[in-house]
Amino acid sequence: MSGKKRILSGMRPTGALHLGNFHGALANWVKMQDEYDCFFFVADWHALTSDYEDPSAIKASSKEMVIDWLSVGLDPDDSTLFVQSSIKEHAELFLILTMLTPVPWLERNPTYKDQIIQLENKDLSTFGFLGYPVLQAADIIMYKANGVPVGVDQVPHVEITREIARRFNYLYTNVFPEPEAILTQTPKLLGLDNRKMSKSYGNTISLSESPEGIRKKVSTMVTDPQRQRKNDPGDPDVCNVFSFHKIYNAKDRVDTINEECRKAGIGCVDCKKEMAEKLIQALAPVQEKRKFFEENPDKVDEIVEAGNAKARKTAVATMEQVRDAIKMS
Amino acid sequence: MSGKKRILSGMRPTGALHLGNFHGALANWVKMQDEYDCFFFVADWHALTSDYEDPSAIKASSKEMVIDWLSVGLDPDDSTLFVQSSIKEHAELFLILTMLTPVPWLERNPTYKDQIIQLENKDLSTFGFLGYPVLQAADIIMYKANGVPVGVDQVPHVEITREIARRFNYLYTNVFPEPEAILTQTPKLLGLDNRKMSKSYGNTISLSESPEGIRKKVSTMVTDPQRQRKNDPGDPDVCNVFSFHKIYNAKDRVDTINEECRKAGIGCVDCKKEMAEKLIQALAPVQEKRKFFEENPDKVDEIVEAGNAKARKTAVATMEQVRDAIKMS
Repeated sequence: MSGKKRILSGMRPTGALHLGNFHGALANWVKMQDEYDCFFFVADWHALTSDYEDPSAIKASSKEMVIDWLSVGLDPDDSTLFVQSSIKEHAELFLILTMLTPVPWLERNPTYKDQIIQLENKDLSTFGFLGYPVLQAADIIMYKANGVPVGVDQVPHVEITREIARRFNYLYTNVFPEPEAILTQTPKLLGLDNRKMSKSYGNTISLSESPEGIRKKVSTMVTDPQRQRKNDPGDPDVCNVFSFHKIYNAKDRVDTINEECRKAGIGCVDCKKEMAEKLIQALAPVQEKRKFFEENPDKVDEIVEAGNAKARKTAVATMEQVRDAIKMS
Repeated sequence: MSGKKRILSGMRPTGALHLGNFHGALANWVKMQDEYDCFFFVADWHALTSDYEDPSAIKASSKEMVIDWLSVGLDPDDSTLFVQSSIKEHAELFLILTMLTPVPWLERNPTYKDQIIQLENKDLSTFGFLGYPVLQAADIIMYKANGVPVGVDQVPHVEITREIARRFNYLYTNVFPEPEAILTQTPKLLGLDNRKMSKSYGNTISLSESPEGIRKKVSTMVTDPQRQRKNDPGDPDVCNVFSFHKIYNAKDRVDTINEECRKAGIGCVDCKKEMAEKLIQALAPVQEKRKFFEENPDKVDEIVEAGNAKARKTAVATMEQVRDAIKMS
């Protein structure tokens, strides 16, 4: 056992990941590997909450996602990478936790009604959708995670997890630590059209985008909307392309672009071209690794199997404690 | 494989069973063993829906109940007797079925609000209690049961199971038969006080009641309330003791008592004494078998383990089909 604190996080399998996924969560996971004992999982059962009517893509998406994880630097020697549905103990803990979770805790979950409205083309009035914070709680406390890296919108979910853990400990015996939300600062990267980068908006650049695809997509990016002509001065602070420069370009070059844009010394077309090349360079090693795993799919399966085995060992041990606690062992 | 139709039924572990449990369900299970391929299970996870605040008695109650099952003639060579929580596949199927079950199907379940009112000393506003028809559906369709022997009050639950099975088959592929409710006629046996025989009313005679206990309890039974004195004629049709005679006494003797009571030829005290002895006789072989199993608890464990193994084999096969159907295998 390492003395490191344990964190756990999961991602729904949505296929090949894009820059929004990367900078919103994955980049942070990669960084956390040094400091924490990390468990990262493919939340494929969670994907059923929204995709139960057609789950056919979940399996392929899961594998694509793991390839992206490995390509950006999640290291199976450092982190436990596993697939939720391979660890059947999650279902048992979920079932047990359903028994002690008040329905009002779930109904007052702020993202519950939000999502029902947002995903109005899907029928989300299901029992499973109402209960997904319970499944999430099972995922987290199964590994006795001390922390859960999340965006600010997910803090209420971690709070429900803490409440469920507390209730279990109170009713039976102290088995679970209450995990803390670890809020992570993420750079503000928008999609091509200045909305949140999201597959459903069709405004993404994926990690596996080809150089030609990147050049083409970047050329369509929205810049400072006030800058109509090349001779107009621009405001980098409201320009999404500039946000990309801040991540992918060298510090002194970013400063220069900042100055030049403000005095119309650089036009948007050139500015985008330069950024596209920097992005292509940055993604090159990721794509090289991806190519390796695409050519060696068995290697990916092996890594996942090893991660599953590691996760299962912990889950089996936790469930023994749980069954002891509820006197059903 | 036998050509027999398969039925499945379960009972919550409430400890030693009483005559109400026996005549309400168990006697029927015993009879059905010839005609059907029977799966009977201890619904210990279901017990958590109402007893989650103190589950400490569930395990011991489960074993007591199985001993009663064996004592009254459930035969492990004919029937598969198993414990729900030992077959982890139930939890996985439950989880998957939660995803496709609309919340309104559960909210409109007529027994849902009834039970919340009836068990008002327990906090049943839990997610698990709302979802227990989903767990029940998982229990039933896991074994592809064709029929479920139930009382009339449980027909709506079987209907929800049919709806869930139909929805699964419609969304994915045809895996599950729709089970039918098999309505069973049960003799009308009331408790000592003429209310429904129920542990919570303290008006039961248990299958393991001692002869002395039976004599004492029967002596307190309510008879025809209109018959105040021994010389008043009685009405056997409204007398619970007479209902017991009809089950436990010889046909011609029942006819005689019927006549004698109506003309005050037999008094309630004598009538009860006679019935008590008949009941003691009837329970003697049951109690003898019970004694054997109490003295050989390992034998009970062996029987349950063998039943679990048999049930598990079927459950594992079903879950392979389920995972194939939802493309998550």
